[in-house]
Amino acid sequence: MPAALIQHPFMSQVALADCNGEALVAAMLSFELALAEVQEARGALPAGASRRMAEQLRAHTFELDALATGVASGGNVAIPFVKQGRAALPDDLKRYWHLGATSQDVVDSALMLLLKPRLTSIDGLLQRCRAAAIALMQAHDETVMVGRTLMQQALPITFGVKVAHWALGLEQARRRLAPLVEAGLPVQFGGAVGVHSGWDDLGLDFMDALAERLGLAAPLLPWHTDRQPIHAVATALDAVAGAAEKLALDVSLLTQTEIGEVSEPGGEGMGESSSMPHKRNPVRCALIRGAARQIHGHTTVILNAVAQPLERGLGEWHAEWTPLIDSALLLEGALEQAAVLLEGLEVHPEAMRRNLEASGGAIMAEPVSRLLAPLVGQDAAKRISAEAAETARRQGLPYAEVLKTHPEVNGKVEAAALEDAAAPATYIGSSKAQVARTVTWLKNAD
Amino acid sequence: MPAALIQHPFMSQVALADCNGEALVAAMLSFELALAEVQEARGALPAGASRRMAEQLRAHTFELDALATGVASGGNVAIPFVKQGRAALPDDLKRYWHLGATSQDVVDSALMLLLKPRLTSIDGLLQRCRAAAIALMQAHDETVMVGRTLMQQALPITFGVKVAHWALGLEQARRRLAPLVEAGLPVQFGGAVGVHSGWDDLGLDFMDALAERLGLAAPLLPWHTDRQPIHAVATALDAVAGAAEKLALDVSLLTQTEIGEVSEPGGEGMGESSSMPHKRNPVRCALIRGAARQIHGHTTVILNAVAQPLERGLGEWHAEWTPLIDSALLLEGALEQAAVLLEGLEVHPEAMRRNLEASGGAIMAEPVSRLLAPLVGQDAAKRISAEAAETARRQGLPYAEVLKTHPEVNGKVEAAALEDAAAPATYIGSSKAQVARTVTWLKNAD
Amino acid sequence: MPAALIQHPFMSQVALADCNGEALVAAMLSFELALAEVQEARGALPAGASRRMAEQLRAHTFELDALATGVASGGNVAIPFVKQGRAALPDDLKRYWHLGATSQDVVDSALMLLLKPRLTSIDGLLQRCRAAAIALMQAHDETVMVGRTLMQQALPITFGVKVAHWALGLEQARRRLAPLVEAGLPVQFGGAVGVHSGWDDLGLDFMDALAERLGLAAPLLPWHTDRQPIHAVATALDAVAGAAEKLALDVSLLTQTEIGEVSEPGGEGMGESSSMPHKRNPVRCALIRGAARQIHGHTTVILNAVAQPLERGLGEWHAEWTPLIDSALLLEGALEQAAVLLEGLEVHPEAMRRNLEASGGAIMAEPVSRLLAPLVGQDAAKRISAEAAETARRQGLPYAEVLKTHPEVNGKVEAAALEDAAAPATYIGSSKAQVARTVTWLKNAD
Amino acid sequence: MPAALIQHPFMSQVALADCNGEALVAAMLSFELALAEVQEARGALPAGASRRMAEQLRAHTFELDALATGVASGGNVAIPFVKQGRAALPDDLKRYWHLGATSQDVVDSALMLLLKPRLTSIDGLLQRCRAAAIALMQAHDETVMVGRTLMQQALPITFGVKVAHWALGLEQARRRLAPLVEAGLPVQFGGAVGVHSGWDDLGLDFMDALAERLGLAAPLLPWHTDRQPIHAVATALDAVAGAAEKLALDVSLLTQTEIGEVSEPGGEGMGESSSMPHKRNPVRCALIRGAARQIHGHTTVILNAVAQPLERGLGEWHAEWTPLIDSALLLEGALEQAAVLLEGLEVHPEAMRRNLEASGGAIMAEPVSRLLAPLVGQDAAKRISAEAAETARRQGLPYAEVLKTHPEVNGKVEAAALEDAAAPATYIGSSKAQVARTVTWLKNAD
Repeated sequence: MPAALIQHPFMSQVALADCNGEALVAAMLSFELALAEVQEARGALPAGASRRMAEQLRAHTFELDALATGVASGGNVAIPFVKQGRAALPDDLKRYWHLGATSQDVVDSALMLLLKPRLTSIDGLLQRCRAAAIALMQAHDETVMVGRTLMQQALPITFGVKVAHWALGLEQARRRLAPLVEAGLPVQFGGAVGVHSGWDDLGLDFMDALAERLGLAAPLLPWHTDRQPIHAVATALDAVAGAAEKLALDVSLLTQTEIGEVSEPGGEGMGESSSMPHKRNPVRCALIRGAARQIHGHTTVILNAVAQPLERGLGEWHAEWTPLIDSALLLEGALEQAAVLLEGLEVHPEAMRRNLEASGGAIMAEPVSRLLAPLVGQDAAKRISAEAAETARRQGLPYAEVLKTHPEVNGKVEAAALEDAAAPATYIGSSKAQVARTVTWLKNAD
Repeated sequence: MPAALIQHPFMSQVALADCNGEALVAAMLSFELALAEVQEARGALPAGASRRMAEQLRAHTFELDALATGVASGGNVAIPFVKQGRAALPDDLKRYWHLGATSQDVVDSALMLLLKPRLTSIDGLLQRCRAAAIALMQAHDETVMVGRTLMQQALPITFGVKVAHWALGLEQARRRLAPLVEAGLPVQFGGAVGVHSGWDDLGLDFMDALAERLGLAAPLLPWHTDRQPIHAVATALDAVAGAAEKLALDVSLLTQTEIGEVSEPGGEGMGESSSMPHKRNPVRCALIRGAARQIHGHTTVILNAVAQPLERGLGEWHAEWTPLIDSALLLEGALEQAAVLLEGLEVHPEAMRRNLEASGGAIMAEPVSRLLAPLVGQDAAKRISAEAAETARRQGLPYAEVLKTHPEVNGKVEAAALEDAAAPATYIGSSKAQVARTVTWLKNAD
Repeated sequence: MPAALIQHPFMSQVALADCNGEALVAAMLSFELALAEVQEARGALPAGASRRMAEQLRAHTFELDALATGVASGGNVAIPFVKQGRAALPDDLKRYWHLGATSQDVVDSALMLLLKPRLTSIDGLLQRCRAAAIALMQAHDETVMVGRTLMQQALPITFGVKVAHWALGLEQARRRLAPLVEAGLPVQFGGAVGVHSGWDDLGLDFMDALAERLGLAAPLLPWHTDRQPIHAVATALDAVAGAAEKLALDVSLLTQTEIGEVSEPGGEGMGESSSMPHKRNPVRCALIRGAARQIHGHTTVILNAVAQPLERGLGEWHAEWTPLIDSALLLEGALEQAAVLLEGLEVHPEAMRRNLEASGGAIMAEPVSRLLAPLVGQDAAKRISAEAAETARRQGLPYAEVLKTHPEVNGKVEAAALEDAAAPATYIGSSKAQVARTVTWLKNAD
Repeated sequence: MPAALIQHPFMSQVALADCNGEALVAAMLSFELALAEVQEARGALPAGASRRMAEQLRAHTFELDALATGVASGGNVAIPFVKQGRAALPDDLKRYWHLGATSQDVVDSALMLLLKPRLTSIDGLLQRCRAAAIALMQAHDETVMVGRTLMQQALPITFGVKVAHWALGLEQARRRLAPLVEAGLPVQFGGAVGVHSGWDDLGLDFMDALAERLGLAAPLLPWHTDRQPIHAVATALDAVAGAAEKLALDVSLLTQTEIGEVSEPGGEGMGESSSMPHKRNPVRCALIRGAARQIHGHTTVILNAVAQPLERGLGEWHAEWTPLIDSALLLEGALEQAAVLLEGLEVHPEAMRRNLEASGGAIMAEPVSRLLAPLVGQDAAKRISAEAAETARRQGLPYAEVLKTHPEVNGKVEAAALEDAAAPATYIGSSKAQVARTVTWLKNAD
């Protein structure tokens, strides 16, 4: 699979180094060894068995190629792993290996162990985004730009408030993901049919102790075919992806040549075009958007696989593995880009001012019209404010100047009032209050 | 659209009666009138204006057909609604109507007002499911049945523990949705570009007051293109759908003619087949599963529409309306079926016993083998337990009887021990403890 | 359901009028009556029975409300429909009604009958789009504009070639859908388990004759759980939606205030903003994009429901109805907008020229550099072409003028050659050839 | 990424060996060298340049790790590949390398070159499935089993006709994919903005010649943002996946312990359960179903990425790569399993007979009732046929025997007629005709 060349670039390189085949094997081994320890502590294994098992297997090198082959016949990676592990143990220990566990116990728990540091890292990246966004919001609290609805120029806002909305989206998603991390991803342990066959009530005790030992959460019950925990994690990751995607969409739009209000931070070779030297492509945005779209597809798989039959899935469970892990890796990669984007975004207030004037003042026609209405009547006010905007745009004059000399306005309004009404900079509504409110809320986080 | 015939049947009839075009108009009107009240209270409208407005418009009949036509040209229902409303007001009030609001403020708020009772109703249905499940779990705490993995008979469980897993899934999803309802669905109010243009800091004040007056939550900021709240609601609804779908999948499998361990509750004409009088189709399951699949599709739309451009979406927002509302209506309908299913499920313990014996005891080969191992060696134990199961199945004899007379076993083990090891009823692991734990947890809810 | 206000606006009003509950009932009745005729013609019904049946039932008014209620208990609309129909017949005809048919035969066939005119209408709209696109392409064969990659200005193209790409996408999709319409949507007729129980080989004969009589195609076999035909139709509709969505995405981007190269055609109230009089919103694009996103969600449902169990689905089939019909209605609505968009698109060549110059000529740096390289060396050529572009942009001068007076260039190159290299209008590559090739291909269609 | 352990097992091992990073590099190199040859043949390169280029680069080892790193900054793998390639060329050839091409030309063409053998292999596997299905259908043309609707026993069919429906689904999907392979996957060549900038009409000529040289199809135009070809391939792959998933769903249901009508073919370690020795899990079905679900998710990504902005995507294109390639690899893997499944499926006609009798004859109540009606009246006929079925089931007697001795029937009907009406084996409708028709159709396929 040409994964390293077409898929990995979207993913966090740090995460890829941490979350590979060896790590999966290590996680499965952690599960089995912790299980033996827990069972030994409760007298189900002879004293010393778990220590000897650990010594043997920590020194053993599992063969990944053989695992990859074996998984196709068994249907999941735990089956060949358990075989390899058992074969590596002295005879008297073989019977204590994987005792009371089923393949899904191993795989689900191992996937949770792999996911945990990824979620922590995602949380850290979101905090970096938050800090960068706060700095941007405060720096641009008074940087006026045009707000755009349906991609059309509408009325003024500030760049600060735009960043506040990005930050709010990202932080809302973070606060949705964080409790899942804090409460902990659940261990899986239920045995063949999820009821700890042969262990009676001790089974739940094993499960709870195993969770503690592995640093995972103890679920109420085994969750072999209760996939709510997977749905919760996958959709929370998807929410973060959506928030990052919104940021990338806006930056993509604002970096358009004709708009040019922000630029992606540069970087060694970032955004070069081989054929067009004048271009700086918003490559970080492309990577974020590309990752987010793939994450949505993965999430769709999870949604459609929540209902799993009876005591164990028949393909539904198998379908979860890659979408879940890949979503996390894709998201971590996307957030690395998002953090750099927010930390290094180049903001061009002069372009924002230029664009504010592009309509000749038409975007200020509404407040001007409101000023004129009591003096010339509502209909005339609307007509005059529109005419003047058109004149201003055609002749490249300031809107207020055109208004001042308009025959029907001349002398009826004070120049200062006209200038005020036609000035985008003073028509930013609650932009500053929104920034202040958002900064407070962001800082109260965690 | 043949909606009433092909789509509505999946939906709650109660919900359909509550959530129609008139209700949408009423919700939009509530928004506008509450806005006027809030503005009047803050001096932005002359005293009495909001009351006069309410009197006029509560008496006015909005024309739904004209709205439906108007929406196509304006792009959303608020545009023709605002026009109809303004036209119905006396001239001196026209300027105070929809003051400072934008279409999306009206539509988003109205959708939240429509959704709110649906979510409350969904919560109520989930509580009905919970109560019914507790009763079933307790009644069948000792009803032994075979657990099935990859749809193959595996080892015994109880029917009680199966219900516990259904209940756990539904309740987990309920506890995910409930905080969204309790925290409240957010009001929308931001004006044209989301910064309360022309109102400065008063804008956030209006927004907060409006939320209170409408019984909605006050968001931190307007959320025109921050769609995290929609993502959260839609994925929480999807989680509930997945939990109901799991229930329906299991019931579908258990009602198969050859298995017959449960039957759907009957009902006037429910599950009849026009051509085959002997059949009772699991129609409730079909309706639940059909609804859940449609919900997953709707959720996919929401996931892919979270990133909306700049200050207002260009099709992304428009794409949310139907999936969001339809998901709620489909889910409410599915849960009505699920509640009846759990309340009236016919359980057939004798069929469960019959199926437990279908393999001749092979499902008990594992505990039997464990019993024999110390006496005849591990390999012989495995061979004997398997041979005996095959003999039992072929000759239709009880597994324990065959074991007792097996030449290699005969005399070496006490009959009672053999009977015990071969008895599914005593090999149910933590089933009872799981039920007890789940009942406690369910009862601690809300 | 507030469908008429939030969902219908995306849909074709013509289609909605044609494709309603009455139409579904009429389609089901057509199926049953055609079945009786076919059976009578083969001696399975007494002579005259089918005619009498038709007379009775064509005069009968089916009660839609009762059908809607009945469907919830039976699980599909055919069950109450068949009951109502039977009740309306004289006793001696009752046994010939719905003879050998199962509910799914009725519903699937009726849905195909409803879809057929929709697909024809969609094809017609695509032909309107094609004709409009050809006219646009030919009118703008030499209208130079800037091509944009990753939304950044790149190199010149023509507006004609852009339209050619839109037209190619739409026509490719049309040629994918058209064979499905021509080959015909398949009738469904298999009886309870799809093998014409009780009719032996006559069953396939009935099926084939029924297809002919209804103007549908005869499938090889009944397709109760072989949903390839549904997958083929749904994904072909989705392909058309994607092509229309591409058009709408481009138009949305080109209508941005700062770009302004095209405008949506006006129309009574189209694109008005209630709060901002200066705006003309690209509402048609929003409707197309909103519809396309919903269609993708519906298609996702179909993809996940193709695998249906054994002889009849258990929720999978039920999940198909609404997504399939709604996709067609949404698409027809979207194409009505697309046709108007292409027929009335306002093109602004002067804005295209202005934007071509926005970078000061930087987009022409590549051909200029190629011209200079043999004279001043490759490195100097690159430097000079970039410097001059920057100067031109800052001083608002034509790129060629700046180049001519550049000290390192002055005198080394003929002015005409410089002007030529710096002229976007002559650097349009195969644009014209592409238009010519596309027009030929489009005109060779059907 | 633990891909080799959790994702690869679903994939064809043959395909994975063929379709790796080296293969991608080789494909990109083929594109560039073919381009040089084509350009040289038309005089755009000096004679011998393409040959020298090929000699240099075929001997060069591209560094995959560096490519993987480079892709993250450039946004796609062509950018670092082109750099590495250029660096490896002598100075006088550097300017002829990648001439007139853009990154997307390289990547899209290379992906098509990678896909082509996969599609051929998929077609071959589908032909294997077809041959195996024909053999199964013919062998079981008279093997009676019960048909099941909504998973309930309904009426008899044959196993042959069930296989015919599987085969029909698979072959329909094959005939949808095959024309895409035959017409050829399209080459991509358009240069920076898709209009062969700087080459004028020669550009299309290059494109056409390049297609021929690479064994790809010549598209009408470059398709940088016209993604209909990708949509067509992805949805055709998805259709095949759906057909395989239907097969796997049915086999899963039929292998249930209580049904046991078929078994998956065995195989070294296939379907073992580590904890339960008596089980043979339908692992091939699980792998097929797991793969199909992932494919549907990938397809959803493609559907949502068809609309790409202006002349080049900004994340949409990037999102396609992995879903497209992974879908092909997953599907090839799934079909390897499906072929083995069909070739080695163990069919248990005795279990089918046993299950036919499980309802005591109730499934034959309809034809029995039809036989009795003229003799005892319709109501009595219905009652008697139902009563007798219940008696037969309870007492474990043949349905016909019970009927014969029923007091209201005794003496009124000939025994032979009763036996005939109660015999599932003679009530198989058009099953045999369907098999015959399907075999003919399947054999007429190329």
